Amino acid sequence: MNKTVLITGSTSGIGLGIAEAFAKNGYQVMFHGLESNGLEIAKAIGAKYNVKTDYSNANLLDSDSIKRLIEDSISKLGSLDVLINNAGIQHVAPIEDFPEEMYEKIIAINMNSVFYTSKAAWKHMKAKKFGRIINVSSVHGIRASEFKSAYVTAKHGVVGMTKVMALEGAPYNITCNAICPGYVKTPLVENQIKDQAKAHQLSESEVIEKIMLKKQAVKQFISVESIASMALLLAADHATTITGTTFTLDGGWSAQ
Amino acid sequence: MNKTVLITGSTSGIGLGIAEAFAKNGYQVMFHGLESNGLEIAKAIGAKYNVKTDYSNANLLDSDSIKRLIEDSISKLGSLDVLINNAGIQHVAPIEDFPEEMYEKIIAINMNSVFYTSKAAWKHMKAKKFGRIINVSSVHGIRASEFKSAYVTAKHGVVGMTKVMALEGAPYNITCNAICPGYVKTPLVENQIKDQAKAHQLSESEVIEKIMLKKQAVKQFISVESIASMALLLAADHATTITGTTFTLDGGWSAQ
Amino acid sequence: MNKTVLITGSTSGIGLGIAEAFAKNGYQVMFHGLESNGLEIAKAIGAKYNVKTDYSNANLLDSDSIKRLIEDSISKLGSLDVLINNAGIQHVAPIEDFPEEMYEKIIAINMNSVFYTSKAAWKHMKAKKFGRIINVSSVHGIRASEFKSAYVTAKHGVVGMTKVMALEGAPYNITCNAICPGYVKTPLVENQIKDQAKAHQLSESEVIEKIMLKKQAVKQFISVESIASMALLLAADHATTITGTTFTLDGGWSAQ
Amino acid sequence: MNKTVLITGSTSGIGLGIAEAFAKNGYQVMFHGLESNGLEIAKAIGAKYNVKTDYSNANLLDSDSIKRLIEDSISKLGSLDVLINNAGIQHVAPIEDFPEEMYEKIIAINMNSVFYTSKAAWKHMKAKKFGRIINVSSVHGIRASEFKSAYVTAKHGVVGMTKVMALEGAPYNITCNAICPGYVKTPLVENQIKDQAKAHQLSESEVIEKIMLKKQAVKQFISVESIASMALLLAADHATTITGTTFTLDGGWSAQ
Repeated sequence: MNKTVLITGSTSGIGLGIAEAFAKNGYQVMFHGLESNGLEIAKAIGAKYNVKTDYSNANLLDSDSIKRLIEDSISKLGSLDVLINNAGIQHVAPIEDFPEEMYEKIIAINMNSVFYTSKAAWKHMKAKKFGRIINVSSVHGIRASEFKSAYVTAKHGVVGMTKVMALEGAPYNITCNAICPGYVKTPLVENQIKDQAKAHQLSESEVIEKIMLKKQAVKQFISVESIASMALLLAADHATTITGTTFTLDGGWSAQ
Repeated sequence: MNKTVLITGSTSGIGLGIAEAFAKNGYQVMFHGLESNGLEIAKAIGAKYNVKTDYSNANLLDSDSIKRLIEDSISKLGSLDVLINNAGIQHVAPIEDFPEEMYEKIIAINMNSVFYTSKAAWKHMKAKKFGRIINVSSVHGIRASEFKSAYVTAKHGVVGMTKVMALEGAPYNITCNAICPGYVKTPLVENQIKDQAKAHQLSESEVIEKIMLKKQAVKQFISVESIASMALLLAADHATTITGTTFTLDGGWSAQ
Repeated sequence: MNKTVLITGSTSGIGLGIAEAFAKNGYQVMFHGLESNGLEIAKAIGAKYNVKTDYSNANLLDSDSIKRLIEDSISKLGSLDVLINNAGIQHVAPIEDFPEEMYEKIIAINMNSVFYTSKAAWKHMKAKKFGRIINVSSVHGIRASEFKSAYVTAKHGVVGMTKVMALEGAPYNITCNAICPGYVKTPLVENQIKDQAKAHQLSESEVIEKIMLKKQAVKQFISVESIASMALLLAADHATTITGTTFTLDGGWSAQ
Repeated sequence: MNKTVLITGSTSGIGLGIAEAFAKNGYQVMFHGLESNGLEIAKAIGAKYNVKTDYSNANLLDSDSIKRLIEDSISKLGSLDVLINNAGIQHVAPIEDFPEEMYEKIIAINMNSVFYTSKAAWKHMKAKKFGRIINVSSVHGIRASEFKSAYVTAKHGVVGMTKVMALEGAPYNITCNAICPGYVKTPLVENQIKDQAKAHQLSESEVIEKIMLKKQAVKQFISVESIASMALLLAADHATTITGTTFTLDGGWSAQ
């Protein structure tokens, strides 16, 4: 039987790219996200790759909704083998002005939801003696940038949680790892480039090289293809001893 | 004028040891904690070392209380130069049974309160062009143990937050660092030793060496003296370029 | 045209496994090693997967031999796209008794040879605007074990060298990464298991779980398949932004 | 009795600053370095702080000379309690042009000499049940810069060696740690500033902020006072559980 993957935040950006890669490799995919046409996206990918898919718009701020998301994944697609915690939000502000509600929301969505999805999926994976939990953290899970106190805190927290789950999952063939990408070109980022080009009176390519990718040695965005390839490798049957660590794809950012 | 330090969770254990060391070195100390005799402790240390002290039992689960804690420290002792975020709680349970309320509480006290105290102290430190924020994280801020998902997550999160604050504080001589101790012998730990000795039918020294300090190469508890010495060094005037990093005192735990 | 990979130490163990995986994926393979039947191994794999292969027994202690190894790879197979520095030796002894010649030899083979092969391959890769340098380091490139001072030093050194090469290679699409495996079941390790079982009067499975894999949470050897899959991913065309970092496959060793 | 410290490379720069701080704190100091007036320096500091000092110009490229350096320290000053491996050289060149002899020399002096001094001092420290080995590594022991392949490799190697010695020293109260400073203002660096100011037609302060300290968030050189304070802390009697780790003083370099 085909394996099943649930990917939070998979109706756009990195999550959608990962979802398509898994579908292409024969996985059944439970989509999740806030796009209003989420179900259509799920159906289109399912049709394209001839795999069963479904969709949920569960609220990741609510632990009961998260439990239902996991239950739905299992009941609708028959199993939950791979859980990819990818959903995340961002807010940029100096610490002294950082809105408290925004801090709490980033911690809740980017970090706490990973605890709740994993906790909810645990018994099922433990019983099956197979589980792959892949947390899409960020290079900000191991390094910091200014004005991103909530995001960096949450992403570092996820890296810690990843290690604990790896240790607890070891006897049950449940692995847990974090992928830590640098900057990826998503629709969100494309808009940022345009805005910054105007604001700084630079060309878009100058914005990319000198501002956005300043900390990367390789002046290219991380490709979704690379992230998806890494996730597929971590999800593989043979990857049972790959656990508790970070896989950093960052164009040399963290090397320097 | 003497410098002022606020230490959360300083009416017992590690925090109290750090507080006494700072008092001994001439710092005014704002104590904080839940011990009912907190004010007496503050007065006793103040009298012993001839420094001004005060005490607060502010609720670290409430961001408004935290703001008042910072305001009180400044108004009662005249300044706030050093902020030591030391308060923390622990709960040990497998991920699948980990109580949600306990997870949320550990994240709130061990991690979010660090955000709220630092945010509240920021403007004051920025204006003074002097600030030293020292987060007492843990070796669990860089490594994991099983059944401690909330604690490890929170402590890793604090390490991330530490880095961001270091970057944002750099122009204002506000430094931020984390101290990451292994096991320290506190009253709490002493009780754990007795309980485990009974449970496992081992001598107390066997419990220490084979269970509690199993991951440390040096089979001794980390001394509060070492932690306090490190905190004093980080607080020093000359330490203006020491920022954004972890100072691990762990008996070789993280080396292996 | 097919890409070409040179793998040092590829006539047995991990290197041979990686070599076979690359051949299977269409790479031409330059074998290297000390096995007397190295050329036969190279020919057999070449025939099995219908790819061009060749073999060298160059002495990695001699920088001129290393230069010829690189030149031979390029002249015999037409190119050098991927360089996998895998050869290594080990010696276990307390620091005070560690033989000086053995220390120097481990540093030379496990670390310095990586400098010499990469230096020799650099101009070729730079001119082609494509290069993938993959250093098979070890979990001992990021963590230590006692009595392995030379090995741990060399493997950490390689991790540092990896980062520098990543930065220098960034403008030329030359990436450099390190793979850091825990214990892998090679013929060498199988003999160690037998010896230790006798010495400690334990069953072989007890030796594996309690002694050899004591530091791993997952009580299984790292599979060569996982290491080879990771190397193939790092060598891919799309992996141009994956550089300067470590990919740890260690059964949760470094997480705790 | 006063404790004794041997500091390699202590007749100028960082080493001299550390030596003076240890003398001020009552340590007997064995100076080592290539300055022709090394003995005078040793005598002057000895007289100033009323401690016994001596001097050696042992060749760190030669393991026999290193053995004699350790023996001389013990015979002339009565003991060797603290060993500070500080000597180091640098060479900056792209990997493809890096002179082989220079690579080998940097590895030998910056890394291998640490192995030889520590090995030679081990039996003495083990017998005394007291030893403190402090390796002055660099932020380049944990991060890279381009064109410094030999230096970064050596400094990472030293960090690995540090961890092994910590593990092996644990039963004997021998600790081993690495201090990893960012840029320190030494006479060598002052000349570099002047040269770069000319070359780039910038003011000296611009050279410092935009070129030399580009990677640091705090735009100040690391003070020798901070490094010496850290070394004194690590050498203390109470520091018996502080071992096997890196103490990074880098103005926020490695945080980002």
